[in-house]
Amino acid sequence: MSSLQAVHNIPEICAQLGITDVVLSPGSRCAPLTIAFARHPAIKVRTVPDERAAAFIGLGLAQAQRRAVALVCTSGTAGLNYAPAVAEAYFQQIPLVLFTADRPPEWIDQLDGQTIRQTDLYGAHAKGTFTFPADTGHADAQWHATRIVSEAIGLAEQFPAGPVQVNIPLREPFYPKAGEELQFERVKVTREVPGRPQLPESVLQELRQAIRSNSRVLVVGGQHPANTELLLALRQFAAAYQVPVVGDVIANLHLPAAPDFDQRLRPLGHQDIFMAVPEPGLKEALKPELLITFGQSLISKALKLYLRNVRPAQHWHIQSAGAVADTFQSLTKVVRMEPADFFGACAYPPRPLSSGEGEPDVTKTKSFGSPSPFSERGPGGEAHIAQPDATRVAARPAPAGPVRLNWPSNGSQLSATEATAKAAYLKPWLAAENWATDFLEEFMRQPKQPFNEFTAIYRALLQLPDRTALHLANSMAVRYANILGLPKGRMVEVFANRGTSGIDGCTSTAIGSALAMPDQPVVLLTGDVAFFYDRNAFWHNYPTPNLRVILLNNHAGGIFRMIDGPRQQPELEEFFETRQMLRAENTARDFNLRYFAVSSFAELESALPVFFAPESGASLLEITTDSPTNAEFFEHYRAQVRTSFSS
Amino acid sequence: MSSLQAVHNIPEICAQLGITDVVLSPGSRCAPLTIAFARHPAIKVRTVPDERAAAFIGLGLAQAQRRAVALVCTSGTAGLNYAPAVAEAYFQQIPLVLFTADRPPEWIDQLDGQTIRQTDLYGAHAKGTFTFPADTGHADAQWHATRIVSEAIGLAEQFPAGPVQVNIPLREPFYPKAGEELQFERVKVTREVPGRPQLPESVLQELRQAIRSNSRVLVVGGQHPANTELLLALRQFAAAYQVPVVGDVIANLHLPAAPDFDQRLRPLGHQDIFMAVPEPGLKEALKPELLITFGQSLISKALKLYLRNVRPAQHWHIQSAGAVADTFQSLTKVVRMEPADFFGACAYPPRPLSSGEGEPDVTKTKSFGSPSPFSERGPGGEAHIAQPDATRVAARPAPAGPVRLNWPSNGSQLSATEATAKAAYLKPWLAAENWATDFLEEFMRQPKQPFNEFTAIYRALLQLPDRTALHLANSMAVRYANILGLPKGRMVEVFANRGTSGIDGCTSTAIGSALAMPDQPVVLLTGDVAFFYDRNAFWHNYPTPNLRVILLNNHAGGIFRMIDGPRQQPELEEFFETRQMLRAENTARDFNLRYFAVSSFAELESALPVFFAPESGASLLEITTDSPTNAEFFEHYRAQVRTSFSS
Repeated sequence: MSSLQAVHNIPEICAQLGITDVVLSPGSRCAPLTIAFARHPAIKVRTVPDERAAAFIGLGLAQAQRRAVALVCTSGTAGLNYAPAVAEAYFQQIPLVLFTADRPPEWIDQLDGQTIRQTDLYGAHAKGTFTFPADTGHADAQWHATRIVSEAIGLAEQFPAGPVQVNIPLREPFYPKAGEELQFERVKVTREVPGRPQLPESVLQELRQAIRSNSRVLVVGGQHPANTELLLALRQFAAAYQVPVVGDVIANLHLPAAPDFDQRLRPLGHQDIFMAVPEPGLKEALKPELLITFGQSLISKALKLYLRNVRPAQHWHIQSAGAVADTFQSLTKVVRMEPADFFGACAYPPRPLSSGEGEPDVTKTKSFGSPSPFSERGPGGEAHIAQPDATRVAARPAPAGPVRLNWPSNGSQLSATEATAKAAYLKPWLAAENWATDFLEEFMRQPKQPFNEFTAIYRALLQLPDRTALHLANSMAVRYANILGLPKGRMVEVFANRGTSGIDGCTSTAIGSALAMPDQPVVLLTGDVAFFYDRNAFWHNYPTPNLRVILLNNHAGGIFRMIDGPRQQPELEEFFETRQMLRAENTARDFNLRYFAVSSFAELESALPVFFAPESGASLLEITTDSPTNAEFFEHYRAQVRTSFSS
Repeated sequence: MSSLQAVHNIPEICAQLGITDVVLSPGSRCAPLTIAFARHPAIKVRTVPDERAAAFIGLGLAQAQRRAVALVCTSGTAGLNYAPAVAEAYFQQIPLVLFTADRPPEWIDQLDGQTIRQTDLYGAHAKGTFTFPADTGHADAQWHATRIVSEAIGLAEQFPAGPVQVNIPLREPFYPKAGEELQFERVKVTREVPGRPQLPESVLQELRQAIRSNSRVLVVGGQHPANTELLLALRQFAAAYQVPVVGDVIANLHLPAAPDFDQRLRPLGHQDIFMAVPEPGLKEALKPELLITFGQSLISKALKLYLRNVRPAQHWHIQSAGAVADTFQSLTKVVRMEPADFFGACAYPPRPLSSGEGEPDVTKTKSFGSPSPFSERGPGGEAHIAQPDATRVAARPAPAGPVRLNWPSNGSQLSATEATAKAAYLKPWLAAENWATDFLEEFMRQPKQPFNEFTAIYRALLQLPDRTALHLANSMAVRYANILGLPKGRMVEVFANRGTSGIDGCTSTAIGSALAMPDQPVVLLTGDVAFFYDRNAFWHNYPTPNLRVILLNNHAGGIFRMIDGPRQQPELEEFFETRQMLRAENTARDFNLRYFAVSSFAELESALPVFFAPESGASLLEITTDSPTNAEFFEHYRAQVRTSFSS
């Protein structure tokens, strides 16, 4: 085997194991990897010079495609620039395989250029780290080389998914001879066949009994990708037990489950509004005794603090594997199932497998794009249903098996007493949600508002195209959107880097999404600090005509003016808000984005239809507002929330 | 003690231990640190939103000031964006103290926002990591808090200097009450009093004897800050033993040692030219038997490969402490002294201490700016002579003690036989250097050159103002400059991020330099990939009227066209050069840089005087060239080197 054949096998292993997209950053040490990936027929390669942006673009691709994406960088600090995206991938559970080219071990710490200590570069934020053999002359070393690439991809994709590093020491020569062709051998790979944990019927029976008999059961969903199966199971569960289900916008529970059999049991989403109401009576009425959660983090600080404060007697978290957070300091039970399986199994007693009538036609709702942002998870929680191309479908068939869910529900499991108790607890939740919905509509209709970003976002979100993938940047964009919610009846999957809640890669992640879903609108809602921070997201040669960036430019980290503490400090403007005078026009010019600038409601309303029109191509809408006005208006909104509630 | 008093003590400890500059990045978790640093009267704070740029700006400040700079960031991925600069600081031995705000330990991994695993965030690239106590109610915890901040600063500054992390868990409330004043207590700190290793006279005598009796002794200096004491000692050593001294431009040996007693013994700098000559006779004539090195890395690949190839029988490296690289695979002895002490002590037998006449007036040459980039190192190798302000001088007195060097030298230690042998080896080195100097001048005078960056840089460097701090970006800028050398007789200290040779923070580092040395011109020579990569270097509100950026825009990573391997690959343009079409005009507009664009020699020559004029303020000179033309011209230069040599 030629000395570089083991390296040339890497894209072949990736392709066999289902990786279709690789993001490269230029370098000399990584040249053998670059050439091998670029020449492999089944791999789509893109090159992005700033590794920080490259890694977040990779993350956006993986998040949208729901399968691992590979990254390739050269030796030295290149790989360190991946670190923010690696941490985000770790906590957001997104599979990335990081191939970091390195010098061979004997040249580390010998003052050679672009040499750092790359072994275990990501420390506690990688699921694992592997070292490729520097020499592959021995047959065992060849086996080792193939083995660890398989293992790394498998580890990255196993639930909970995450980033895995493969450090690859390379000796010169790096380049094939001019005109030389690479051989892609059909190497043997190791495939993961993920299982999906089930509970014995006796245990399920106990859980059902506990849910049935507890009159204050609340379901809260954390961040979760859109998932038809889960949406259906949740609604069946809610109908069967008559319990409120609450989810932030990043939980993607707002998506329509088809058909929507009970509008009253749509998951609630206005907790950021009604939880801010200082009514002890309401708080008492909403208090859960059994809290059931799934997914990752919450945005709603009001809900989080409320749950932390009330300390429900029981808190079950549903998660098939991996470490579990105790966000509300109340965790009593971790149920090791997929959330969809858990809610489905609790909603119904077991029945014989069938593919018969009466079941929802999941296949019809599975996809509303290519690849679908609305797909279910495969067994074991790995995310591999969305199939963007035929090759991919052939390489990894969609998991077969029964559709576990049955509907419509009739809630027949509850006794009359149980049903009454459940209804008494459900009622104030529904009332609070309805009040918040009406309040918000009315508030937004109030005349003579100064131009401000809160209202501007509301109006922009109302015009979101159907089938949008919506990316919400940290820090104010995601909070505003969680308060405002999304227009009803539209298919909008929401993404946000809430693993670490950094502002460092929000634009790049959206660009990854736009590259992965060229047939869908991808809209990024972002603030000026996040936008300019990650401007290198645009610095590459791959068009994203489906990308729309809504930039809230208040020339500052406006969030700091919203919080009591910093607002009162003399350091506010220089050290917290960080006043910055950039406008995005030059950036738009640099990167050929169609540029819209608005600073009034009239301008906004007239720009939005053109901005969102498919033929506009990659576009940037800069909404310029004034930070003190925003803060004042938002305070006005909060004051109205506090005083308007009547139960 | 109030719960935040321990945090408020941090800037006080920093100030007492000589830290004057802090770079903050905005955030909420770090607010107590931000406020405490911003309010401390002895600390200069600046805020930079992009932490990657912030850390490199801090590195540039520390590099220029030759003392530790502190950095403060919020929790989450903020600290990970420091990582590239941390690695550079580690390998370039620059003291940074990284205060990373964190959530208290119980909230790690609980799905709180902006939370990652910050303990030991920089792994193998920090000199140390400390965890601040989360609670300081107990007296021992208060002592611990003070102690570790002292210890962290001491560790960062001890030779070899480097980055140290102090992770600071913080609970709410973060903010003092409106109008509340902070108390800065005079806390007890621990000061380092660095020693400076000396060798017993008997050992020195053996070393002198070995140098005297070996007829092929070569001194090679790696990257090293400008240092008068070292320059004088080296020239005395060279004169006493008649040995060639070679240094790349980043070794700063080109700086004039005053008075320059033997022009012939100025260190040589054209090794990149004459080492490229394919003359076996020359290579044989230059071959060392005893190689003596000091400092960090070499740029000149030709010299490095030559030394690796000839494998000198003895290789001594002079370094007072720390791990030593074996760059040439020949290391036989590590001499634990400061290079200036070693060369001084070897040049002269010991003599009674005196401050008498006949000694060089080091004080006159010590400073040519404020702070001086041309200062000596204090005892123990820590870099603290340059004193930018009176406070600082009072806080840490310049080390007293004898000036160890005597001059002029007469080489009287060599016997006649020894002198003859030494001269025979010195002669071809001087001849090669002289040939290269003449060759370059003649080559550059050749008419009808196409406009290309090699010649353009040569012409720009000729017009560098005196007292310039010159920053050379990776990757081609530093290589070109090392070939071309610097104009004679001008005080130009050279900086380059050669610890890791990354392109990721070259502009930010230069900006740190410009902030630290407002009275000196700071010139950055950079390529387009490095420039656009680190554009956020400019994204802050601190003016740098002394900054001049020379941008070589060939719309690609032009280095890849210079190397045989990638030049011959079909992937050249997309995956190696990474063609990018950005021009810097919009960036200049965004950041109020005076913008000069040139694409011919005539335009260049007419722009340079205005560009370098002090009254132009922060300016950007974009030299647009064509990558294939550059490669072709550089190949032409290399061909002429190969064929023009006659010994």
